[in-house]
Amino acid sequence: MSQPTPTLYTFQYLLLALQQYWADQGCIVMQPYDMEVGAGTFHTATFLRAIGPETWNVVYIQPSRRPTDGRYGKNPNRLQHYYQLQVVMKPNPNNFQELYLDSLKHVGLDPLVHDIRFAEDNWESPTLGAWGLGWEVWLNGMEITQFTYFQQAGGIDCYPVVGELTYGLERLAMYLQDVNSVYDLVWADGPFGKVTYGDLFHQNETEQSIYNFEIANVEKLFELFDLYESEAKRLIKLDQPLPLPGYEMVLQASHIFNLLDARHAISVTSRQQYMLRIRTLAYSIAQAYLLARAKLGFPMAPQDLRDIVLPALEVIQ
Amino acid sequence: MSQPTPTLYTFQYLLLALQQYWADQGCIVMQPYDMEVGAGTFHTATFLRAIGPETWNVVYIQPSRRPTDGRYGKNPNRLQHYYQLQVVMKPNPNNFQELYLDSLKHVGLDPLVHDIRFAEDNWESPTLGAWGLGWEVWLNGMEITQFTYFQQAGGIDCYPVVGELTYGLERLAMYLQDVNSVYDLVWADGPFGKVTYGDLFHQNETEQSIYNFEIANVEKLFELFDLYESEAKRLIKLDQPLPLPGYEMVLQASHIFNLLDARHAISVTSRQQYMLRIRTLAYSIAQAYLLARAKLGFPMAPQDLRDIVLPALEVIQ
Repeated sequence: MSQPTPTLYTFQYLLLALQQYWADQGCIVMQPYDMEVGAGTFHTATFLRAIGPETWNVVYIQPSRRPTDGRYGKNPNRLQHYYQLQVVMKPNPNNFQELYLDSLKHVGLDPLVHDIRFAEDNWESPTLGAWGLGWEVWLNGMEITQFTYFQQAGGIDCYPVVGELTYGLERLAMYLQDVNSVYDLVWADGPFGKVTYGDLFHQNETEQSIYNFEIANVEKLFELFDLYESEAKRLIKLDQPLPLPGYEMVLQASHIFNLLDARHAISVTSRQQYMLRIRTLAYSIAQAYLLARAKLGFPMAPQDLRDIVLPALEVIQ
Repeated sequence: MSQPTPTLYTFQYLLLALQQYWADQGCIVMQPYDMEVGAGTFHTATFLRAIGPETWNVVYIQPSRRPTDGRYGKNPNRLQHYYQLQVVMKPNPNNFQELYLDSLKHVGLDPLVHDIRFAEDNWESPTLGAWGLGWEVWLNGMEITQFTYFQQAGGIDCYPVVGELTYGLERLAMYLQDVNSVYDLVWADGPFGKVTYGDLFHQNETEQSIYNFEIANVEKLFELFDLYESEAKRLIKLDQPLPLPGYEMVLQASHIFNLLDARHAISVTSRQQYMLRIRTLAYSIAQAYLLARAKLGFPMAPQDLRDIVLPALEVIQ
């Protein structure tokens, strides 16, 4: 089979090279979740797979939408839609940090030459009920990665502990390509010429910023939030609960909350209440998912862990 | 930079190898659209970019959801969620068919050894108002690709003509791995052992089939369809129309229609009406998108085409 010869410095090559690097470390290369989410952590391949004793090693890219971060295409560093690369390893390997530094080397960033620092920064997702011990990784004064050891997801203790890496791909690429605006990033460079990030997404940033900040239908979004919340509850309370479709309702509610936030439709006091409502859903989904996996016998767990966890859960049931 | 060494026969390798092959032919490697769609064609990188005179060459994977195709995880060949690989080249290269056959060779399928046939099958999307001259590609009696020259998208004539390839990745992989059930496909195979398609998606197929066929909230879905239709219209009728957010409303309406279809909630007669309502929206979005790109001066079009198309559109406006 012929060897691929992509143009080495482009954004698309960075994405392919990091996926292949982590594939070589044993990670499953998955595809992005096909719903609007605020971060790679919301993908079922992180949030749900972090729960329970099953072995799980995965890498994927996730388009991430944060409506409040939009700047009408006018800020060179801020986007309401961007890409995260997510690596999840359960149990976390002992040399996780070393593997990470090697991944930077793999895409042309020698940690011996560049100033790479780990700054302690414990991570928490108030809507997912997830938190962990963590570090921000700074490259010459710019945050390029979040490094976390998950302690809880959906309120459930993570055992084994889950190692999670979230790469900010645009920032890493801006450094590698030495450009000052995200829109100048070269995404592809081939026989048809260069295509920039701006060619692909500038119009979208402009239009979506207008939509998110000025046009999104506040009254209907409040109705939709209530609808997806009640649907999530309904799916969990069925005789045979459906945690996976239920979780998608939580994703919908979460994105709607972010849109309402961008529209300044939620007061400071009710903000906490909305986040609590999402977290409550995330807790129920996480419990239902754990029980569903237990019923399947935790097929991806090592035998010794299965023998410990399964009987314990039968007591809970 | 070290050469990647993924395990050559896995599903994930097939996806990476095809992306890299088309990158080597000059295609931009994009990421899946982060919303629920029925096929790769619905991604803005096909449907909207097919419109107008701009040069466009792209490859991407798209998770595709077809609720009616679910079989509760019990059929070895049918899924309600699966992956398409989409290649779009505008203008279509003269050797498009040859490039396609070479892509099969690149992943280990020699067209001289295997029985590969092109069966004429013109393609039409009644909801997108798109159609083209096309062929199904059959490999030893199994359809593995749809090959189309787009003539219209959103009711607008495609000039230049757009070449589109849609690979059915699971089928191709089943053939390459010689397995009879999609759930037995090896997705990844590394230091942590083999992970199958079933390990990743069987639970999801079961739960989503129950949701799609039995549980989805028909009354609310009808309300949501009306909501997204009216939102799409509202976004197009603004003083500054927003075709990109508007198109996302069409995607929502289209997926809701598919869910209602799976719930048998739409009669044969009203089925046509719903499809017409989506197509009417798709037409308006396509027009608004064409004008938005014209206002930007068709930045990715060759000068000669720009000089022809821009003045013509000013007459229409």
